[in-house]
This record gives sequence, C-alpha cells and structure tokens, in this order.
Amino acid sequence: MATDFRRKEQLPDLTDRLVETYQDLPTIHHLGHCPLPSVEAVIEIVDDLKELVFPGYRRRQNLHMGNVVYHVGDLVDGLHDKLTEQIGRALRHRYQLQNGIHCVDESKQDFEKLGQEKAIDFLESLPEIRRLLATDVQAAYDGDPAAKSLDEIIFCYPGIEAITVHRLAHRLYQMDVPLIPRILGEYSHARTGIDIHPGANVGPSFFIDHGTGVVIGETCDIEEGVKIYQGVTLGALSFPRDDEGNLVRDEKRHPTIEAGVVIYANATILGGTTVVGRNSIIGASVSLKKSVEPNTVVTIENPTLRFREAS
Amino acid sequence: MATDFRRKEQLPDLTDRLVETYQDLPTIHHLGHCPLPSVEAVIEIVDDLKELVFPGYRRRQNLHMGNVVYHVGDLVDGLHDKLTEQIGRALRHRYQLQNGIHCVDESKQDFEKLGQEKAIDFLESLPEIRRLLATDVQAAYDGDPAAKSLDEIIFCYPGIEAITVHRLAHRLYQMDVPLIPRILGEYSHARTGIDIHPGANVGPSFFIDHGTGVVIGETCDIEEGVKIYQGVTLGALSFPRDDEGNLVRDEKRHPTIEAGVVIYANATILGGTTVVGRNSIIGASVSLKKSVEPNTVVTIENPTLRFREAS
Amino acid sequence: MATDFRRKEQLPDLTDRLVETYQDLPTIHHLGHCPLPSVEAVIEIVDDLKELVFPGYRRRQNLHMGNVVYHVGDLVDGLHDKLTEQIGRALRHRYQLQNGIHCVDESKQDFEKLGQEKAIDFLESLPEIRRLLATDVQAAYDGDPAAKSLDEIIFCYPGIEAITVHRLAHRLYQMDVPLIPRILGEYSHARTGIDIHPGANVGPSFFIDHGTGVVIGETCDIEEGVKIYQGVTLGALSFPRDDEGNLVRDEKRHPTIEAGVVIYANATILGGTTVVGRNSIIGASVSLKKSVEPNTVVTIENPTLRFREAS
Repeated sequence: MATDFRRKEQLPDLTDRLVETYQDLPTIHHLGHCPLPSVEAVIEIVDDLKELVFPGYRRRQNLHMGNVVYHVGDLVDGLHDKLTEQIGRALRHRYQLQNGIHCVDESKQDFEKLGQEKAIDFLESLPEIRRLLATDVQAAYDGDPAAKSLDEIIFCYPGIEAITVHRLAHRLYQMDVPLIPRILGEYSHARTGIDIHPGANVGPSFFIDHGTGVVIGETCDIEEGVKIYQGVTLGALSFPRDDEGNLVRDEKRHPTIEAGVVIYANATILGGTTVVGRNSIIGASVSLKKSVEPNTVVTIENPTLRFREAS
Repeated sequence: MATDFRRKEQLPDLTDRLVETYQDLPTIHHLGHCPLPSVEAVIEIVDDLKELVFPGYRRRQNLHMGNVVYHVGDLVDGLHDKLTEQIGRALRHRYQLQNGIHCVDESKQDFEKLGQEKAIDFLESLPEIRRLLATDVQAAYDGDPAAKSLDEIIFCYPGIEAITVHRLAHRLYQMDVPLIPRILGEYSHARTGIDIHPGANVGPSFFIDHGTGVVIGETCDIEEGVKIYQGVTLGALSFPRDDEGNLVRDEKRHPTIEAGVVIYANATILGGTTVVGRNSIIGASVSLKKSVEPNTVVTIENPTLRFREAS
Repeated sequence: MATDFRRKEQLPDLTDRLVETYQDLPTIHHLGHCPLPSVEAVIEIVDDLKELVFPGYRRRQNLHMGNVVYHVGDLVDGLHDKLTEQIGRALRHRYQLQNGIHCVDESKQDFEKLGQEKAIDFLESLPEIRRLLATDVQAAYDGDPAAKSLDEIIFCYPGIEAITVHRLAHRLYQMDVPLIPRILGEYSHARTGIDIHPGANVGPSFFIDHGTGVVIGETCDIEEGVKIYQGVTLGALSFPRDDEGNLVRDEKRHPTIEAGVVIYANATILGGTTVVGRNSIIGASVSLKKSVEPNTVVTIENPTLRFREAS
C-alpha cells in the first residue's frame, strides 16, 4: 500500500494547465480585483441581526431588560463595522463592473465612507423591521393549528426564517446596496427551500406555511395579511427583450397580490399585470395568468380521476 | 478611505430605540425568562443519536464488536445528561407558558428530575427505533433501482435522514416532550426538504424517494410498507374553528394511508377522514379529498396537451 | 433540582441491549470493516475544488495572476492526497461488498495506488470542467433578467452550485469511482433542493432557475443549451424487474432532452425512450410520457377554472 510519489511530479504541469484556463476564461475567475464581499462575513452579519430582532431565543440566554442593552449595544457596534466593510466592498465591486476597471484607487472614491452611511441607515431601520416581524409571527400562529406557541414559531418555522431574512435583505435592496441582498436571499433559500427575491415588496402579517418550493419574483407586490403554502410560484409570464434581443432587466414582471389573499399549495400566478383582488382564495394547483376580482374563490375543475382495480 | 467615528456616536441612541421595541413588542423577545432549550445542543443530541443507530458510518471508524460497547456507553452517558437538561428546559418553558409566569422557582417543580425520567425512557426506546430503521433502509434498497448498496442508502439518502430524525422526534412527541420534537423536525426539513410533523404516525418499511417538497401533517397515519415520491402532500382539508372562531388545535385533520400504498410525485391527499385503502397506487399529480378502496389505481385523466410548431 | 444518579446505573444495561441490536441487525451497522470514505473529508474536497474552478470568489481574496499559481499548486497537491485516500477507501469498500468480506489484506490489492491513479485522472479533467462551467454561468446570465452580473451568479445561484458539483461528481462516476459521486450529489441536493443523479449526462450551457424540487434521473441525456425551472422531474416511467422480480439496476430509464429545449416549472417528463426534440418548449405542469418532435411547443389545455364569490 503506497502512494507513487513519482506520479506526483506531473502535478505542477497540471497546475499550469489549470491556471492557463484562468487566462482563457476570464468570465469565471475573480483575480486581480479588489476583494468582493465575503459570504462568510455576510452570514455572520445576518446571524447577529437575528439575535437583535429576536433577542433571547438563540445565542444568549438569561437576558433581561436590565442587561440586554449591553448585549444589544455590543452587537450594534460590531454590526456597524462589519456592514461598513462589506457594503463598501459591494459598492466598489459595482463601480468596477460599471466602469470596466479592475481595482479602484480609493483616494478617488471613498467606498468605505459610503458603506458606513448605508450601514447606519440600515441599522436605523431595525425597529421598524421588528414591528413588521411581530405581525408575521402572529399571522403564523393564527394561521396554523399545529402551532403550539409563538416561541415555537420563532424557534422552528422556516416561513419565519425566510421572511426575517427577506425583510432585512429587502431593506438593503431598497437602499441600492448591490450583491449582499441576493447573498442573503440565497442563504435563506438554501436553508428553507423558500426563494424570495430581495426586490419583492411584502406587506405585514405575511405567512408562508411549510414553504418548500415557494418562488416569489423580484417585482412582486404582496399586500397585508397574505398567506401562502408550499410550492406556490409568483413568477414572470415571459421575458421582454429589447431591439438587440437582450433581456429587459427592469419593469414589473411579477404579479400583485392584494390584502387578505390565501394561495394554496402549488398554485402558480404569473405576469406583471396580473392582480389577485383582496380577500380572494386561490385553490391548490390553480394556474393563473390574468387578474381576479376581489373576494373571488378560484379552484380548478378537478381533472377527472380514473379508478381501476390493481392487477 | 476612512470610517467617520463621529457618526458612530449615534449608535447608543439607536441601541436605546431598538431596546424600546422590546418593551413595545413583548411577543417576539424572550427576555427575563429561564433559558429555553438550545437549538445547538438539540442538534448535537441528534448527531449523537445517529451515531448510535447507524454505528461506524460517520464519526468513528474502525469500530468492531470488541470496542463498540465503550463508544456506545460513552455516547449514552453523555446523551443522558444532555437530554435531561434540554428536556427539563422544554418542560419548564411549557409550564411557564401555561401558567403565564416568567421564571419558575425550581424548588416547587423539579423539571430536571422530570427531564431525566423522560431522557431515560427515550434512550430505552432506541433498540426498537433501530429495528424500525432497518426496515426503512431495506425498503429504500428494494424500491430504488439507482441504489447500489445499503451503505450508500444510509450514507446519502435524504429519505433515510428524514425518517431517522422523524422516528426519534416522534418518540419524544409521544412522550409529551414539548418544543424539542419540532426543533428536530425542522432541522431535518432544512436538510432534506422533507417536512414531516413529529406527530405523524409512520409504520415500518417507509420509503421517501428524492423527497424535496414532501409535506406530512401532524395527524397522518401511515401503515407498513408505504412508498412516497417528491412533492407529495398529506395535508389538511380545512381548519375547523370553535365558537370564538379560534382554530381547533386537536383532532385528526390529515389522511390515513394503509399498508403497501404507493404515492407518486406531487400527488396531494387531503382531509382527516380520507383513507387510502391498502395496496392502492395514487398516480403523479392526483388530488384526492375522499377515501379510496383497497387495491385501487388512481390516475388523472391526462389533461389534453396542445402541440404546435414553435414560431 | 437534581439528577438522580442511581437512575444512571441502568445505563450500562441499556447500552448492552443497544449493542445487542448491532448483532441482530447487521444490515445497518458498519462494524469490523475497513474505514469507509469520510463524508466530512469529501465535503472538504468539493470546497477545495470550487476554489479551483472559481478562484477569487470565496476563501482567498487578493489573488492575481502573479500569485494564483502558488495557491492553485498548493490546493492541487492537497487534493491529490485527499482524493487518493478517499477514492482508495471507496474502491476497497466496493471490493469488500462484491466479495462478501469485511476487511481486505492490502498486500493483495493496493487500493491506494488505484485511488491515486483515479485521483490524478480526475484532477487532469478540471480544465475541461472549467470550460463547461463557463458556458453554464453565461447561460444563467442570458436566461435570467434578475441577474445583475456574472459574479452575482457565481456567488449566489443555486443552479450554478448544483451544476458545478454535478460536473465534478459525474466525472468521478464516469471513472467508475463508487459511493463518492453520490455523496457529492446529495450534498448539493441538501444545499440547493436540486437532485441530479451523478450518472446524468448534461451538455454545456445548462441552466436551472430557482431549482427547488428539480429531480434529474441517473440515465438522463441532456444536450447543449437546455433550460429548466423549479419542480421539473426527468424521471423513470416504471421499474423493469428480472425473472426473480428483482429490480433491473442498469439500462436507460430516464428521458433524452435535445439541444435548446426549455422546460417550465413543475413539468414532468418520464421514460427511457422519451425524447424531447431540439428547441422544443415544454409548458409548466405538462406531464409527458412520449416523445415530442423538434421545435414543438407543448402546453396543457388549461383545466377549467371555477370562479365564485367568497361567502
């Protein structure tokens, strides 16, 4: 039993051939650039933010009104620094892309200063985000007979994980922070199976039950008190292209869901002009491409079932 | 390139405004309470339990009948202590919720002692759980032509991961342990995309293939030798409410699947009185809301397909 | 508040009863065998490989053409050793299974040497795999109006994560390496919700959007420029059995998708003889069990929708 060390002599040559492909294929390496945001650092940030919006559930126990201010102050101070650095990197990265340059002379553009401004604006929005999340947690309890307590929901429900990360990512998206909102969204998608683009507008008291397979597109508008089940897609009908045949990357492509609507499992609602009127109910597996009046129940004519005895 | 330190002076004020929301929104913080179960500790527990039920596959290699008893004895001793603490916390948490109090004087109620009793009862059930899991692994091998060996199934199959964690979580659920079974279930849901509520009764030789998007509700009864594919929902038809309009949180809401039934991808079976008779086959995408006789094959009348040439 | 230590005295007895089940149920333990591949080590390997195919995005920043060769050379050298050990273990494991023995006298069969040969052949294929991945990243950008840059796609898109791991796993599968390709595939499935069997043949410029719930079977053939949405299944129609009623584990069971085909969300295409002709478009939720001519658009006759006012 032995490794043949002579065979290892071909590894340097193999290394050279691999590095050559970095020259041939510049689109999929990131060499000779200023550093990108760090995915690991962004995930650390979102974990700190969860600790701020739902204090006492995870990392730190035995917090009370007397000592929580120190815990929160410490987290806020650290988040200021982490967000400043990562947002600064993201802004610089976009600047480089837009100007087709590799690395920016910081003296010209102070991206860290811009990052700090956005970082502080973002932290200022946390009280408002907490108010929204409190409505989401209550909506989950009111909407699920299996829920035993609010604590269980905050602890366990993937729908709460997804909307928590989304509300944070959406705020960064609104502040025109590049890249980081999408990293947050896909981090949550990987953990919950719920794919909400950071651009989607979601009103208060939003509840996704079970959630696996849900897809909510970038230009969706979802009003207050909407409830969605697993496998629901709120998607685009088709992609308009400009005269050069390039995809048009702005404009509303995804539906509007008005207040109080319930959408059952695996329903699909497509198109930027499609509006589901308030308090309507969309049945399981319904596929909608046009608007629906308020207070409408939409179900599919059950496809005829065939019953025969097993051979 | 510089952070503006004067701007950081507003952080303490921001911290105070955030902490104020903890007073305004008491439903979504956990301050001034005895400690909750720790999600991290519960995940450690499930990893130890996997090592006990499938020894030699993961953490420890080179185990044999001669030395495995020490490895197992050590794990069992540690699990006793971890389970005692976490179950004790969960019982105390429920007691507080039910009595609307924040922290319990332990001298009145010895939750750790109660936790220990349940911890030991749970550990006593591991041999039986292993017997069930052996039937599940065999069912996976018999049911999947892509399976190359039993070891591959234990190593890789998300369906085995899901049923393993479910059988552990369901035992704790039967023992009336709060919170922890649901934490286990959602841990497995996040890793496999398979959402089995800990309350579901699942017989031996159960196999879920692929699994992403499967949802199995709290009051399902699944008999021996049932096989389920990705995207299948065994769900509730509607939620009964009491006279005050509150959700009724007990009573059977989910279907019964008798022995030997096969349910193909994306089928949906709803309702607490719905029974799928033994050895029946439910076709892909079938939606069922009423009972089916034994030995029945149910398929959908294929929706007419439109074929036209691409423009 | 106290643990009752006398109760712990029953733990050794409990341990014995648990260990007894290892004798009774030999199918689900791995005792007295040579070590299996380590899942943790295999995951480390795939992370190193991602760093090689997409340099500069994750672990190491500030790389440039001047220093990247050292970084790559170091990774390649370490990967040689890790792959040699893990592939050697996998080959030995299969040998044991096939010969019904527990542990092999290495002097008879040098699995490490075999492992090294395959490890080096695999590393030699990385430049080719990078060329394929460059086409996949471009296809994602061309196919998704929400994509802001190629970097965002490499950073965030689960479809890219899935095809990256698949192209690595498929190469090992082609080299007849057991177990490890499936561990890779399920690792990616757990992170993305996309379940691609390592055996599937996938051509260049492949794009999966959103992806959760996608299932692609072992014997699929997918040609160049195919685009697939969430929830699509490319599966088997039924499992042929031999005269003893055992599953036939080889032969083509899954469809062929020709170049330029687009398959929308939740469509299902089944069967080893089913061929979807080039440039065809398969609509959302279509279920296909027979072949389709090139340039065909297949949609379902929309099931009649029922609209009524909510009571």
